[in-house]
This record gives sequence, C-alpha cells and structure tokens, in this order.
Amino acid sequence: MNRNELIELIFRKRSFLCIGLDTDLSKIPQHLLSCEDPAFEFNKSIIDATHDLAIAYKPNFAFYECYGAKGWESLTRTIRYINETFPGETFTIADAKRGDIGNTSQQYARAMFDEPSSGMNFDAVTVAPYMGEDSVKPFLSYPGKWIILLALTSNKGAADFQFFGEQDHRLFEQVLTQSQQWGSNENMMYVVGANQAEMLLEVRKIVPGHFLLVPGVGAQGGSLREVAKYGLTKDCGLIVNSSRNIIYASPGLDFAEKAREEAMKLQKEMELILIQRS
Amino acid sequence: MNRNELIELIFRKRSFLCIGLDTDLSKIPQHLLSCEDPAFEFNKSIIDATHDLAIAYKPNFAFYECYGAKGWESLTRTIRYINETFPGETFTIADAKRGDIGNTSQQYARAMFDEPSSGMNFDAVTVAPYMGEDSVKPFLSYPGKWIILLALTSNKGAADFQFFGEQDHRLFEQVLTQSQQWGSNENMMYVVGANQAEMLLEVRKIVPGHFLLVPGVGAQGGSLREVAKYGLTKDCGLIVNSSRNIIYASPGLDFAEKAREEAMKLQKEMELILIQRS
Repeated sequence: MNRNELIELIFRKRSFLCIGLDTDLSKIPQHLLSCEDPAFEFNKSIIDATHDLAIAYKPNFAFYECYGAKGWESLTRTIRYINETFPGETFTIADAKRGDIGNTSQQYARAMFDEPSSGMNFDAVTVAPYMGEDSVKPFLSYPGKWIILLALTSNKGAADFQFFGEQDHRLFEQVLTQSQQWGSNENMMYVVGANQAEMLLEVRKIVPGHFLLVPGVGAQGGSLREVAKYGLTKDCGLIVNSSRNIIYASPGLDFAEKAREEAMKLQKEMELILIQRS
Repeated sequence: MNRNELIELIFRKRSFLCIGLDTDLSKIPQHLLSCEDPAFEFNKSIIDATHDLAIAYKPNFAFYECYGAKGWESLTRTIRYINETFPGETFTIADAKRGDIGNTSQQYARAMFDEPSSGMNFDAVTVAPYMGEDSVKPFLSYPGKWIILLALTSNKGAADFQFFGEQDHRLFEQVLTQSQQWGSNENMMYVVGANQAEMLLEVRKIVPGHFLLVPGVGAQGGSLREVAKYGLTKDCGLIVNSSRNIIYASPGLDFAEKAREEAMKLQKEMELILIQRS
C-alpha cells in the first residue's frame, strides 16, 4: 500500500487506529483454547469485529515465536486472512524489530514481504537502527513496502540510549536525521511512543512529513489527544496503535464485541481529531 | 551452559570457534534439495563433520524465517539435533538480534529458551540494545542462559550510530558501560566485529572479563590473529564466528568434508593461540 492509498484509507475510515495483535494464549478467552489454532481464531474474530474501525493491524512477532513453528503458522494464517478478506482495506505491520548485516536483513525482508518464499506479505516491518544503513536498506528494496524505524520508543529503557548525546543532538535525533538519506516519506516511517507526546514537537522538526507509528496509547499510558496535538499533519501522518486495551477488553464470549466497543471509542475520538484539523 | 563449563569446553577442544549456520537454500549443494528438509540435512552434515572442532553453533534466524513456518521447523530440528546428539559439548547461539518492550522481550525469551513452549532451547541469544534495560533484562531471567548484546558490529553501517557521541564516550562505549548494571560476565557477552580488531583494546578497557562474540573473520575480512592479539583473556574470553567460509567451502558432494577442512584450519590456529597465551 503506497502513501496516497494509506492517506485515502485514513480519511475514508476516519481513523488512524492500528490494532496490535499481541495474542497471548494465557489471556485470550479460554473457550478458544479447544480450537485447532486458538491464536488465529482469536485474531480472526478481532479483525472481523474491528476492520471498519482500524486502518492497520500489527501482529507482534514475539507472541507467536514463543510457540515456535506452530506460532509462525498462526501468524502466517493471520496475515493471509487479512490480505485475502480485506484487500486494500488494511495496512499490515510486521512488528518484528529486525535488523542485521546486509545479507541477513535481505533474508528478513524476504520473510516479511516475499509471499512465495515465506507465505507472508506485510506492508511494513519495524526495524531497529543500531546496525546502521546496510542493516536497513535491504528492506527498502521492495517497491510499495515500508520500514518503520525505531526512533523514540514507549518503554522506560528508551531513556538509556535513545537520549544519549548532547541537548538537541541526541541519538534518536541522529537516527531521524541520518536515516532520511536512506529512504523517503513514501517508504519510511518512525516509531515514536505516545508517552513521549511532548517529544513529538522535536520529532516533527526533523521529520515534518513522515508517518509516525505511535504505540503506547492505553495500557502504556499515552494520551491520544496529546499525540494528535503535537504529531498530526495535514495528511494525518499518524498511525496510533492500541493492543491490550482493545484485544483483551473482555475475557468472555463477548470478547470481540467488547473489542469493537473499545476500538470504536478510539475511532470516534480520531474522527473528531481529523475533522477539527481539516 | 555456564561460564565455567564454557571455558572448560574451549580448553578441552582447544578451540573458540563458532560456526554460523547461515543456511541459504540457493547456496547449499543442489543434491540436498530433494530431501524433505534440505536446510536441516545440510546443517546436520555440517555439525556432524565439525562438532569436535567447534565449540558453538549459531543459526542465523533470518535464513530460516525467509521460508516462514517451514523455516522455523528446520531451525527447531537443528537446535534439537545439536542438544540431543552432543549434550554439553556445544554452546548454541540464537542469532536473532531481538529486543522490544519488556512484556514482548519476555515472549522472545520464551521462544529462545523455553523448550516446552517453543520447541527450542538455546544457550544464548543475540540482543539489540536500542530499547534499553527493560528490553534486555527479560532474557536474563533464565538461569544458565546468556544474552549477547550488540556493541560494535562488523558491518559498514556500524559507523552510523555505534560511534555516535564524543571521543571516548561513544554509543558503543555507553552500551558496554551501562549494560554491565543489568547482568554479569556470567550471563552477558557482547558482539564485537573482527574487522574492528584494534577497537578490541577500547572494548577490553570497559569489559575486561566478558566473553565477546566476534563475527567477521573470513568472508567479512577480519583476522583471527588480530582479534586474539587484542581480545584474548586468560579465560580465552572470545568466541570467534565463521559462517560462509566454512559452510560453503564446497558446493559439491564433499561439502561437509571441505567444511571440516576449513574449520580445522581455524581450530589449529586457535589451538596455537591458546597454547602461546597460556
């Protein structure tokens, strides 16, 4: 999905909500555990109940990898289901935080983007910047695909290295600045945590036009209003993720219905934000 | 495998060689492609031919993930084969470069260390430091397991961010310094590229006693002598990886035999280094 299509999708759905599929078998409704593939069944129900409210889904790879090859099958079924059932209707993000030397990142890119090889075809993948240009560029060799580079993350440990350096020249600013030589706002986004809302002002000085993937609204304490105040652009420029608050809204038979209610709360708030801004 | 066992293994085998299983189906001998699981058959042959010369194996996850769930099965078979066939005889490294917020790193740790859950039981996992303490610590909650934190990598892009900062206070130095509060030399190692051999002097000032995983000898141009000159400690303190030079030594039926020859060249050189130093 290219930038124009993404923007069109956002304004058509009046939403910039991404739902994080951090699907944990110890947290999903217990009645699903008797299914052959509980993680997939859970994801399918969540997706079916929210696809008109969310513009993106973001499976978090760790939650599948902890079940090994079987988990990768659940993941593969999930991305295939989205692509086959809602073609052109959802942006898909492989939240995998990959990055390695060039020949290795090339293989990770195949895993995320090359369906004949891996069975998976995501629109975007999250990438860690520590290893620099040649660890990032192989992901950019797929036309129409995106990387979402970690800049300023939503966790406590973000302070350990991302703020390393001097005032106005910290590591995350260097990552934002330097990485713009590797791609454009047509194929690169950045992760900026919602609990760093006031930092979005600093981020927007460096990347005024790039889309930002903003995790941390909800369970991690970030405020959607604050994020929009500092991060919204004329093209929206934001994809705001919520995971636990939506997918675990209820542990019972009504889990999908309750997930829809939570997603709708955010979508309604986003609709207002988009209307007020335009 | 704990530190004492690792050191004992190194001096018993007179080797600090790690063989990187970057198993690429387009590079392995073509006659293997008719097997049900070519990647596993290749790995098994390489391991059988080199297990007395190498102290560690390091499957590179990207080369399996590019084949999706099927690739994860090859990976799982490989680690199981090593653990079942050579118990206590090899140190195993999940070269996966993972790292995410705490609850997510916890799931990645399960993938690498919790065999009942994922089917895999590695001794160590490579971890990217960008997201800081809480992205790293969950991996350290498994007794007897190790993390290998990226410090100074072997690729060109290492220069982009790892040297960010001021002289004597660059990002990789900050990573080395700060991360020592999170674990000890009993459960943490660092990646330092072989082509950064002279930098090992700087690294050793900060982490005199930690093991270093050193990739980049061979295909990436690093010199074993240089690495040993600057990085060796009384406990050895080094695990030197070679991948392509060994596993692709021959494209023919004799691939395992030729891999053994290449591994033996390095082991003999390592034996001399260990003798000269002790």
